[in-house]
Amino acid sequence: MTLLGDVDERQLIEDFRSFIRPEGRIGPGDDAAITLDGTVVTTDIVTFDRHFPAGMTYEQFGWYAAAVNFSDLAAMGARPTGFLAALALPATLEVQAAYDIMSGIDQCAEFCGTGIVGGDTKRGPGIVAGTALGTMDDRKPMLRSGAVPGDIVAVTGPIGGPAAALAAIDHGIESEEARDSLYMPIPKMEEGIALSATGAVSSCMDLSDGLGTALNTLCKSSGVGMDIELEFIPREDYVEEISEETGVPVRDLLFDCGGEYELLFTADRGMLRKIYDAEVPFHIIGMVDDSGFPELLADGKRSRIGNGRY
Amino acid sequence: MTLLGDVDERQLIEDFRSFIRPEGRIGPGDDAAITLDGTVVTTDIVTFDRHFPAGMTYEQFGWYAAAVNFSDLAAMGARPTGFLAALALPATLEVQAAYDIMSGIDQCAEFCGTGIVGGDTKRGPGIVAGTALGTMDDRKPMLRSGAVPGDIVAVTGPIGGPAAALAAIDHGIESEEARDSLYMPIPKMEEGIALSATGAVSSCMDLSDGLGTALNTLCKSSGVGMDIELEFIPREDYVEEISEETGVPVRDLLFDCGGEYELLFTADRGMLRKIYDAEVPFHIIGMVDDSGFPELLADGKRSRIGNGRY
Repeated sequence: MTLLGDVDERQLIEDFRSFIRPEGRIGPGDDAAITLDGTVVTTDIVTFDRHFPAGMTYEQFGWYAAAVNFSDLAAMGARPTGFLAALALPATLEVQAAYDIMSGIDQCAEFCGTGIVGGDTKRGPGIVAGTALGTMDDRKPMLRSGAVPGDIVAVTGPIGGPAAALAAIDHGIESEEARDSLYMPIPKMEEGIALSATGAVSSCMDLSDGLGTALNTLCKSSGVGMDIELEFIPREDYVEEISEETGVPVRDLLFDCGGEYELLFTADRGMLRKIYDAEVPFHIIGMVDDSGFPELLADGKRSRIGNGRY
Repeated sequence: MTLLGDVDERQLIEDFRSFIRPEGRIGPGDDAAITLDGTVVTTDIVTFDRHFPAGMTYEQFGWYAAAVNFSDLAAMGARPTGFLAALALPATLEVQAAYDIMSGIDQCAEFCGTGIVGGDTKRGPGIVAGTALGTMDDRKPMLRSGAVPGDIVAVTGPIGGPAAALAAIDHGIESEEARDSLYMPIPKMEEGIALSATGAVSSCMDLSDGLGTALNTLCKSSGVGMDIELEFIPREDYVEEISEETGVPVRDLLFDCGGEYELLFTADRGMLRKIYDAEVPFHIIGMVDDSGFPELLADGKRSRIGNGRY
């Protein structure tokens, strides 16, 4: 008799994919699914238990619950068309807190150009199961499986904020900037839509599971390898500072922690001009090769990049 | 300081509707929402705590979690295009039980002509937050708000099974038929699609909150009243039998309990031929009037029909 507690959660999600039917035109294995009639859709659960660090407000928790879903749409290049909020909240919670959660969801949905279209509320331990809906209009969805050797590897913005925030909290260090990146992640909606419109992107995913895991996932899905340059990875000054103050290596802050909401993508080198023209900010961090896995180049040494711990 | 436990759950859902934006073309207030690009969508949470009566299997729980969502689509007349299953399950649950839940969801989705397109799995107390997607093709959605005086009131099939099952369980009476109606409700997909295609239906909703509540909801949404004939309401023999054996009045079994999945609808009297032609089974149970609330005619007496207790 095997209990769920004995099984790796990611393995379980992987196994459950056997239930996913060809009714989905895209998925499983991408950030969101696309149904036969073209609706892009994704669902993600966040819980008080696991996604509610000390100091976060209920409004921020609501924002976060919506943002993780919208980020999955962003990774496909979808434009949001609606959000559903299914809440399971404790009877001991203040009513105002429930409103604050809804308000946070509402604000994030509005930021993403859409709104709450429906939901459900039941008693429970503090769970928000969000569902984000979107459309590709006439763009092609960005999948995880299209990277080819010779493509560049890039991210849309600085990495390491959420990991630095957690390290700072652990060590009792105040850092508002770091904390904001952890508590109110910004889904890269416009960036995702603009990237998919260029036609230059060969694969894309969000960084919600962390950069290390994302690089491994893209390599596996596309059947390629990657060389990543540590010094190329963009990061805010506070990430370096918190690394020095806490003793947590910068590398760990950049690769090992989830909760990031920049997009990771690969693109055809010959078509980079289209991405510059689209005015999406991005930073090249490496190249796709045929080695089969992601490797890191740092201080002249090469090492394998593992999955993160998140 | 008001706690959620002090507030009626339905009131809270009602209040949360203030967050729902005009991005939804239909809703709030109907069984499902319709987004601006025409996707019909609904989400419902079921929990081990509240929706897992003794003797139910994990597979049946999974079926149930999917069925409640598909039933909402059926009430609009939508054709299902996909299902998302977000699970929050205890670490102490057997892995096989988790598979059984997914298998039950999968079977119900297949029965409804679609499949699981995505999902999420986290640790939690035993919660399934399902999301069903659908399309109206070129039919008009059936809403709760279109009933007018003179319309007939009808249901698609026998009522009272789930209430009878619960009464039987309470009194230690075996009744497999009743139990099946409680544990494996059949979403009326084909019936909903066929009814919406007739163009004769003026309002519709499912009976998941029970007949009493549904009649009150239709009256309120449409701004009408209704006269319902107790003897007209279709029921299986076992409902009468369990009523006699347990002493629970038939009226209570028919009106007060949720977990029913027949459809309740009103229709233009002059267009009934279209519903007969569509070969949807239905039973007229009363008439729409302008009294403002639903009343029951039984044994020559007239009484107000209240909300159910579910």
